[in-house]
Amino acid sequence: MSKEVIAQQLSKFYMFSELQPAQIEKLAAGTKLIDASRGTILFNRGDIANGFYLLLEGQIKMGVISPQGDEKVIGLIQPGQSFGEAVLFMERTFPIYAQATLDSKLLLITRDAIFDILDNDTTVVRRMLAGISARNRQLVNNIESISLQNSTQRLIGYLIQISTDSPNPGRVQLPASKYTIASMLNIAPETFSRVMLKLNNAGLIEVFGKEIVIINVDGLRNFEFIL
Amino acid sequence: MSKEVIAQQLSKFYMFSELQPAQIEKLAAGTKLIDASRGTILFNRGDIANGFYLLLEGQIKMGVISPQGDEKVIGLIQPGQSFGEAVLFMERTFPIYAQATLDSKLLLITRDAIFDILDNDTTVVRRMLAGISARNRQLVNNIESISLQNSTQRLIGYLIQISTDSPNPGRVQLPASKYTIASMLNIAPETFSRVMLKLNNAGLIEVFGKEIVIINVDGLRNFEFIL
Repeated sequence: MSKEVIAQQLSKFYMFSELQPAQIEKLAAGTKLIDASRGTILFNRGDIANGFYLLLEGQIKMGVISPQGDEKVIGLIQPGQSFGEAVLFMERTFPIYAQATLDSKLLLITRDAIFDILDNDTTVVRRMLAGISARNRQLVNNIESISLQNSTQRLIGYLIQISTDSPNPGRVQLPASKYTIASMLNIAPETFSRVMLKLNNAGLIEVFGKEIVIINVDGLRNFEFIL
Repeated sequence: MSKEVIAQQLSKFYMFSELQPAQIEKLAAGTKLIDASRGTILFNRGDIANGFYLLLEGQIKMGVISPQGDEKVIGLIQPGQSFGEAVLFMERTFPIYAQATLDSKLLLITRDAIFDILDNDTTVVRRMLAGISARNRQLVNNIESISLQNSTQRLIGYLIQISTDSPNPGRVQLPASKYTIASMLNIAPETFSRVMLKLNNAGLIEVFGKEIVIINVDGLRNFEFIL
């Protein structure tokens, strides 16, 4: 893999996505390509980090061995993900080991390369922080939208259930306060209100205080999550 | 709010969680407490970032106004979350506006304070990168475990469905290959295998190639997610 291809891979990675071409080039010069066949140990617990890794192909298992000798898998790294950076930046030793569970290709961004560029170019620092912050925001947004999706599904399931159990399935009475039902379903009260409004706006239910008219039960069943 | 209390809030924030007390103190000296009553605009689209924000209490809406004049909410910031850092670090202008939707208290970590400490102390840079990287890993792990939970629920729902539809509910035949079913349920084939193994190990099903013995259908229905 040429330095140009390595540079290309690095610039696609969120941590370096805001760096300028000359900065990427410098980093690529200090980056090593590693071919790790299945079973290869990349580092052991207690090792010093001589860089951090970006997985291009394959799969890496991170784990610990308990005092009883049992293995506990902490995580599986997939292509596009990096690992080892927190340990590298803190200049600690690895608290876990890493092993290839498939034939894998990785980039090792060496300690010298990354520290050199961080220590000598303040624009690199700001651009890296910008890239990581943007990624962080995106991850938080993902979690929020998945959680909202789950809340919506739970609330729909609950409405269908009380409707099915009711003598008058088209017009049901909430058997407790919004706060109680939200808490039972493990949903924040604000999320509860938001989901009810969404279902109302979608023409699936109509809300009159504690009384809910179920307009379209099949629609509720098939409701796809829309924020 | 005293500088000591501000320092305490900053040190609890993931981005600064690895900083040393003297570094936190310096940052606290350049941090302003902002009381924003409901409706207050913190910044408008096009404004220059004079720092980034950490929300302590209340709620902040981030949004854009379309050329047609419609408002689009991009996100809601909850206490403990920060915003504006990517724009600050890139030295761009805000592409969105931010408005308090509840009476809110925020910390404004000023541009001068954060850039001064980043430019003059390489250990701050490393410690901030470490804190953010660790946070990133945690967010990715959260997303993975939520996704696995959803995959498990979908696969269980599918197994219960084919069992209910079968003349012999205790012993069902998968009607297609693992790859086809996984794809239909929007699950990666590896995740499919992992969930089947988990259900097998929990004593709920037994897998003989394409034939599945359903040992405990109520157990399946009530299966709580365990990694």
